[in-house]
Amino acid sequence: MARSECGFVGGCRVRAAFLVLIVFSVAAVAWGEAPGNAPERLRLMPLPGHVESGAGYLVLDTYFNAGFSGSHDARLDAALDRMLARLDRHCGEVLRAQAASGDGSPRVLTIRAAGPGNAVQSVDEDESYRLKVTPAMAELTAATDLGAMHGMETFLQLVSTENGTCRLPSVTIDDAPRFRWRGLMIDVSRHFEPVDVIERTLDGMAVAKLNVFHWHLSDDQGFRAESKKFPRLTEAASEGRFYTQEQMREVVAYARARGIRVVPEFDMPGHTSSLLLAYPEYESGEAVRELPAVFGIHEAVLDPSNENTYKFIDAFVGEMSAIFPDAYFHIGGDETDGKEWLANPRIAAFMQKQGFKTSAELQAYFNRRLLPILARHGKKMMGWDEILNPALPKDIVIQSWRGEASLAAGAAQGYVGILSAPYYLDAQKTSEAMFLADPLPADTKLTPDQQRLILGGEVCMWGEQINAQTIDSRNWPRTMAIAERFWSPQSDRDVADMYRRLRMASLELEDVGLTHISGPQKIRRSIWGAEDTAPLDVLAAVSEPVSFGERYRGQHTDALTTLGRSVDAVVPDPPSRQEIARLVDATLAPGHAGESQAAAMELRRRFMQWQAAAPVIEAMSRRSPMLSDIGQRAQQLGASGAVGLDALSYLETHSAPAPEWKAREMAILADADQPSALVRFVFLPELRKLVEAAAANLSQP
Amino acid sequence: MARSECGFVGGCRVRAAFLVLIVFSVAAVAWGEAPGNAPERLRLMPLPGHVESGAGYLVLDTYFNAGFSGSHDARLDAALDRMLARLDRHCGEVLRAQAASGDGSPRVLTIRAAGPGNAVQSVDEDESYRLKVTPAMAELTAATDLGAMHGMETFLQLVSTENGTCRLPSVTIDDAPRFRWRGLMIDVSRHFEPVDVIERTLDGMAVAKLNVFHWHLSDDQGFRAESKKFPRLTEAASEGRFYTQEQMREVVAYARARGIRVVPEFDMPGHTSSLLLAYPEYESGEAVRELPAVFGIHEAVLDPSNENTYKFIDAFVGEMSAIFPDAYFHIGGDETDGKEWLANPRIAAFMQKQGFKTSAELQAYFNRRLLPILARHGKKMMGWDEILNPALPKDIVIQSWRGEASLAAGAAQGYVGILSAPYYLDAQKTSEAMFLADPLPADTKLTPDQQRLILGGEVCMWGEQINAQTIDSRNWPRTMAIAERFWSPQSDRDVADMYRRLRMASLELEDVGLTHISGPQKIRRSIWGAEDTAPLDVLAAVSEPVSFGERYRGQHTDALTTLGRSVDAVVPDPPSRQEIARLVDATLAPGHAGESQAAAMELRRRFMQWQAAAPVIEAMSRRSPMLSDIGQRAQQLGASGAVGLDALSYLETHSAPAPEWKAREMAILADADQPSALVRFVFLPELRKLVEAAAANLSQP
Repeated sequence: MARSECGFVGGCRVRAAFLVLIVFSVAAVAWGEAPGNAPERLRLMPLPGHVESGAGYLVLDTYFNAGFSGSHDARLDAALDRMLARLDRHCGEVLRAQAASGDGSPRVLTIRAAGPGNAVQSVDEDESYRLKVTPAMAELTAATDLGAMHGMETFLQLVSTENGTCRLPSVTIDDAPRFRWRGLMIDVSRHFEPVDVIERTLDGMAVAKLNVFHWHLSDDQGFRAESKKFPRLTEAASEGRFYTQEQMREVVAYARARGIRVVPEFDMPGHTSSLLLAYPEYESGEAVRELPAVFGIHEAVLDPSNENTYKFIDAFVGEMSAIFPDAYFHIGGDETDGKEWLANPRIAAFMQKQGFKTSAELQAYFNRRLLPILARHGKKMMGWDEILNPALPKDIVIQSWRGEASLAAGAAQGYVGILSAPYYLDAQKTSEAMFLADPLPADTKLTPDQQRLILGGEVCMWGEQINAQTIDSRNWPRTMAIAERFWSPQSDRDVADMYRRLRMASLELEDVGLTHISGPQKIRRSIWGAEDTAPLDVLAAVSEPVSFGERYRGQHTDALTTLGRSVDAVVPDPPSRQEIARLVDATLAPGHAGESQAAAMELRRRFMQWQAAAPVIEAMSRRSPMLSDIGQRAQQLGASGAVGLDALSYLETHSAPAPEWKAREMAILADADQPSALVRFVFLPELRKLVEAAAANLSQP
Repeated sequence: MARSECGFVGGCRVRAAFLVLIVFSVAAVAWGEAPGNAPERLRLMPLPGHVESGAGYLVLDTYFNAGFSGSHDARLDAALDRMLARLDRHCGEVLRAQAASGDGSPRVLTIRAAGPGNAVQSVDEDESYRLKVTPAMAELTAATDLGAMHGMETFLQLVSTENGTCRLPSVTIDDAPRFRWRGLMIDVSRHFEPVDVIERTLDGMAVAKLNVFHWHLSDDQGFRAESKKFPRLTEAASEGRFYTQEQMREVVAYARARGIRVVPEFDMPGHTSSLLLAYPEYESGEAVRELPAVFGIHEAVLDPSNENTYKFIDAFVGEMSAIFPDAYFHIGGDETDGKEWLANPRIAAFMQKQGFKTSAELQAYFNRRLLPILARHGKKMMGWDEILNPALPKDIVIQSWRGEASLAAGAAQGYVGILSAPYYLDAQKTSEAMFLADPLPADTKLTPDQQRLILGGEVCMWGEQINAQTIDSRNWPRTMAIAERFWSPQSDRDVADMYRRLRMASLELEDVGLTHISGPQKIRRSIWGAEDTAPLDVLAAVSEPVSFGERYRGQHTDALTTLGRSVDAVVPDPPSRQEIARLVDATLAPGHAGESQAAAMELRRRFMQWQAAAPVIEAMSRRSPMLSDIGQRAQQLGASGAVGLDALSYLETHSAPAPEWKAREMAILADADQPSALVRFVFLPELRKLVEAAAANLSQP
């Protein structure tokens, strides 16, 4: 820049700084609480049942003292320690203040739990709590440890650092969950997840007030639970990746300490290739020779006509029951392929003798045989839709992967159930879509009695396309939005406010150890080959993974697929989707010229970034095989940025594009909408809106 | 932007895009390998002893088969599995290619280890290897598993993704370490580090070809090793944060699998407040009543006049020896405060009887008593400088925290030693400074025989100011630079090339699980309160933590200090220090007008970013207590940016500033050099250079 262009030093500097300043505009506005902390701007998630705002603030300064009133157990002590450590990370010096407060000093936060709750946490536990905050003190009361722990999470979420201090608004919260069963299932068979991944997941669940960890411990691709009675299960069929009994006990204790039940699942009679590789004597057909790398439905299936099969299951369930104290035992039961049964003359003869015409009848027989076994070990049966059969008693729990209709049909027959179908995370749906799916919709046809049979729901994280590096970014923060659906009132359906709170909850989830933000960043550094990944970040910010099915077809994922490509470096439903939608709406809103201009300016900044990033990424993609798939995506990003800038220019100058303009721009966007690199752009509907609006200038000369 | 300013749509867009484009300029150039892969541009670290370049490349495509020639043990199998998984993350589909290759197909990489090495890894192990890569195949030969594992790391570092493929250059590498003892010490007493932190540290050490993990397991603030004979050690003195015996065995096995010895340290007779809280009967003075929160030298000390003290030590060392197979046992021995000894009449009488005039003599007596105890359990003694005493035999290892002179003095007396003084990571020195510090400098006065007594060195990470969240960013990547000093030839002193390779090694270290980049980013998100921390990133990129002493005085750190403030969100010796130095040098270099202009443009971009970020951070720092300390830093950053822009303007226009200009700008930089927020700026020397140069324009009208 030549001196003569600046006029004088200061002038040059000021203008240049302005141009850089716009880089930060979003960061500055993203930080979201309104001044004054109006009650509706609280960041509570899941939303409590009842919130009554008071006046003033409880300020947490160098004097702080939290403790219990009345008796309490070690679990609550540990929970308070964790809470104080997190508070310390947000506010600083809280632990010092707590240590300095003598036992005699007045309490800032008093916690009172009437009792610890059941020795083995049950589905009927009282999880309610009441949290009252005044400018002088805070009081948390609950019937059980569970309620107290939920209340502590809420206490943390009330803390804000507005106004230069750490403080909580005066408020009274009465809260209890809408559903009793609020779960997250993790499949550790398709890809193994080490104990620390499980434990940080449990920490995240506690933040989300989820209370069931459903551990899918066996499937075709690996048997992950150590059995001392049947050691070959992990010796022959885990490739060394399994949990020892001590580790499983540790996870159960870790979960209990956080108010979370652990329901183990051992899938049978199908999805048992790993089991049958270890113990071929229970196989219905040809022996399994190796763990199948390919995912999907395999033919290997237990032999229900063999009495030894039940002896094996009896011994195994007994052994696992000593590790997993929960009342429920999940037997899977899904996707059983009857081919081997029908092809085996001995089993066919057995079926004929029993009068079974279909493999479904044989599976129902198998399940019926399991009932007394589970009962003997103090367990109730749980399974997927397929176990629903009139031959089975009504106290089994049906987990519905087939959908709300299937769940309701079960309830209509008197079966207890939970919903999972809308909450399959690998479908890569938005938080919005999953948040709005209700286990018990307002328009349900079920009677009140039948409604009571719907215990809640479970989020499902299947393991085919994830590993320890990527699981968090697939689980979180979306699971938080579903957890709110399970906990909060049916009437809670304000999507914009849900996203506002979700953004803040997402940071809290990373604070307790999850890696849904840092994990994808790490993959971007790895595939970009440099610490600074700015251009790739621009592309990643507006991209999301395609669905399970699209990825499966596009990549043929199996146990050997590299899970560290571009698709693994982007997150589902990224913040930019909401941000761009808001900016486009504001740009196009009538009136409010100032807001509209500011929004347009921010959009312009983003579109320019897309244009700037595109050639850099394209150049890199020609050099690096790990980036080779996204060269085309980069080109499309740049072209989309140009479309956006064009549209903004027409809109801002109120001038009309040439008649053919709209078709040309829409064709560019249609090209960007084609599948490629296993990711899709999240901005296309909004960009189309902009083009439509710019084209409409034609009619308003 | 009004339409009229743009002239036509395209023109407006192009100009705007250019202004954003400069945001990415560094990212694009940071990716560093020269086209053609000239041998000197390899990213090998630590630098091998001998590298001979050949012609052409070995391309890793869909056909890949790595395996062993001759016998090999499970340790090497596992090492190959890990190597293939990392290769898969860099190149993709490597595991699939490996799985598809039948055993009969020709090997792309053949590994041959003559033997596994010693059952218990010794300090004298042969760690050499030879790696030969041709366009047709690669061959790795070594005398032991250790050499083979080092060679696998080198193989990975040879892989580049230039030219759209994964490939290795033709090369023959003959490599062996310069020093036999290449250690990293971690203090887990002051702050506990969970097992997964230790394990990922061991993974990083393997990348760095380090071979000793020195585990400082006890100190005043906590006893971290479970003893079954003396359970109160952890019951009373660990606050529940300790390693079970099974976990310690797991760590030893994990280390061995990576060619790393584990040397446990139990500090005595001083630094024993935790031990003496648990077992006051071995105390010399008043009983310890609680774990001291304050760091530093405490008076609590074992009673060397009490025969039971030795019985206790004997039993304890015996128990630990069953867990830690290494030949060495570190007894600490540092910073013993003799006050309690001299104040205790019984001990004073004992000293008089023995003829000891000083507490140092009593400590030497204590150490002498330990020798037969250690010998009985098959251990050699290791300790800090203070154990050096003519009364002790010559096969003890002296670890020098006092410096090279002290180490050399020991060697001159015939003592074996390792150097640690220059490698205290909490001094927050640059990689450059630590890389250049040599355990055996070129100008050493030691005879060749005495030189052989210097076994190597150890990096030391003391635990006062770190926790599990921040330890990695203090350890890495700087430890890699020191590891190169321990491994590579003495003549390896090219600092610029070291940094070039360090940047790439840093990514590899995150790839194996360390969090030195992602950890500080996470803290920034937490204290900034938003996912996008762009303004804070600008400040953090040019800041580094003050030294241990400065932080200790400025914050009075103790066990209760919040370790999640700005200082914990910045890294020592950040990349920007080197980058700015390079840009300033290029800007001021005579000739090369094009390069000089490009460098000045990049500097201008950075200075503008500083100016833009400053007011945003200042505003945030007024709101958030966790950011309150950096408001002043932000203001100084902005002012420094203005200084830089001013200087550049004068330089570029060859015009003279007013006579008082230089003093004014230097005063601004001096203000920015004042201690504040426990961080310091890394750019001040370079900015002063710019100001000097601009002011010198005066004399060249």
